Amino acid sequence: MSRPAWPPRVTVVEVGPRDGLQNEASTIPIDARIRFVNELAAAGLPVVEAAAFVSPRWVPQMAGAEAVAAGITRRKGTIYRALVPNLKGLEAARRSAFTEIAIFAAASETFSQQNINRSIADSLAVYAEVCRGALDAGLRVRAYLSTAFGCPYEGLVPAARVAELSERLLGMGAFEVAVSDTIGIAHPGQVLDLLDVVAQRLPLARVALHFHDTRGMAIANVWAALSAGIATFDASAGGLGGCPYAPGAAGNLATEDLIYLLDGLGIAHGVSLDGVVAASRALAAHLDHPLPSRVYQAVQSSRR
Amino acid sequence: MSRPAWPPRVTVVEVGPRDGLQNEASTIPIDARIRFVNELAAAGLPVVEAAAFVSPRWVPQMAGAEAVAAGITRRKGTIYRALVPNLKGLEAARRSAFTEIAIFAAASETFSQQNINRSIADSLAVYAEVCRGALDAGLRVRAYLSTAFGCPYEGLVPAARVAELSERLLGMGAFEVAVSDTIGIAHPGQVLDLLDVVAQRLPLARVALHFHDTRGMAIANVWAALSAGIATFDASAGGLGGCPYAPGAAGNLATEDLIYLLDGLGIAHGVSLDGVVAASRALAAHLDHPLPSRVYQAVQSSRR
Repeated sequence: MSRPAWPPRVTVVEVGPRDGLQNEASTIPIDARIRFVNELAAAGLPVVEAAAFVSPRWVPQMAGAEAVAAGITRRKGTIYRALVPNLKGLEAARRSAFTEIAIFAAASETFSQQNINRSIADSLAVYAEVCRGALDAGLRVRAYLSTAFGCPYEGLVPAARVAELSERLLGMGAFEVAVSDTIGIAHPGQVLDLLDVVAQRLPLARVALHFHDTRGMAIANVWAALSAGIATFDASAGGLGGCPYAPGAAGNLATEDLIYLLDGLGIAHGVSLDGVVAASRALAAHLDHPLPSRVYQAVQSSRR
Repeated sequence: MSRPAWPPRVTVVEVGPRDGLQNEASTIPIDARIRFVNELAAAGLPVVEAAAFVSPRWVPQMAGAEAVAAGITRRKGTIYRALVPNLKGLEAARRSAFTEIAIFAAASETFSQQNINRSIADSLAVYAEVCRGALDAGLRVRAYLSTAFGCPYEGLVPAARVAELSERLLGMGAFEVAVSDTIGIAHPGQVLDLLDVVAQRLPLARVALHFHDTRGMAIANVWAALSAGIATFDASAGGLGGCPYAPGAAGNLATEDLIYLLDGLGIAHGVSLDGVVAASRALAAHLDHPLPSRVYQAVQSSRR
């Protein structure tokens, strides 16, 4: 059978300490969050999204971003990234010595209103300022585009809308847009369809994909995207970030599962699977449910 | 991007009542097993592997196959299948009015010895007799070839060996061979590689694939196999059949997750997802752990 032309190397972006923990019911102690970031960086993950400078009133799990940032042992070669919602967040991230930030826009109007309390247009106006400020200060900006494959309120989001908003985020100066399946609804056919449309507006080298494994499709979606040439994927150690009200429910694409796939395909990534599993194991002690990563579970049961 | 040529229709073979339950720590009451089979058939699954006529000394979870068979309401159009290890099992399956049986060979010598207590050669000699007896009596025979992607004792199993043994099983009169990833170790690149080799010896229309989701690759493996033209997949409602000693560990490819993928790709299958979820839900009450199917979990949490 014909083989897809996979990229020879993939960048795995670790979002467990931010997107993962943000969606957990448990609040994790600051020192455990610091250890988690340090172990993930030591495992060779090239980018670790380590914190979010957001209001602890809205996202209590992310409280103490300054303390987390101060506690991290910065490794040479690792990019530490922080999510910021506005200029105030940007300043806080700079004070905490982050050299890269992430902004978080939505492709669905209703989700934007519900999730970040602003219309898409208003959020883009704020992010344009944040991008200017960041670039002037020498920081790089990564943009998320959430609900790109579907919205819990609006259902399917038009691919043309995703392409247009992605282009605008890059136009503001973001080096990359992470097209995100926030509710874990995408299947691999949809991934190929969306990438077809997106590729008409921007180079796929500037597109990362961000999947949740809510319906078990995340690895198949990665496989499909690899065949389309995508070479940057977000993942969360242990598959952190499931719905806090559904024990055992899947969260973000698990870093361990992604590494297993890439190893099988012979795609380079530079990450130690054992190192990621060790980071997940240390964090798991603070959670009220088993980590959903299949590979993590398989490794754990082989240790019994 | 170029699209793989998916088959327009896929046959989903439900193995939950046999392979699924056989690997659960809990023993399920006979009436719950009967209800499970009836609900799966009512959900539109074209083939339900309902029982195994094996020694309850070796597989206590399958005890009472006669009672299960007697309790099932046979639906027109549903194929009910039973696993049999030998001629005695074949006779029992005939007495219980099964019109289709399954035999279970291994691609790894050590696994064959450990799992069915016979060398591969000895097992094939027995199965040749079973096939003759079944065909003479007008029953159809399906063959499993286990450990086709790897063995817990021997590691990787040569693809040429898998192709040769598959050909021999078809040569005995089996209408189909289910090439099986017994330990859930396959990744989609390996699936394509193995199918390349197998296709040199036999028509892929006579090959089914049987995946376990132990390392989260099952759906991606299906996607890869679909692109190679495979149109028959085994699955287990709820993802039953995880390791009994690892709570939350994945088992067989979940029927619900497979249906979600097929629906996304627009591939016909004739199965009601709601019906399968209902069958899983009724069975889950008898288990000591949450069902691992991601789609099942997503549906359950949306009901809260």
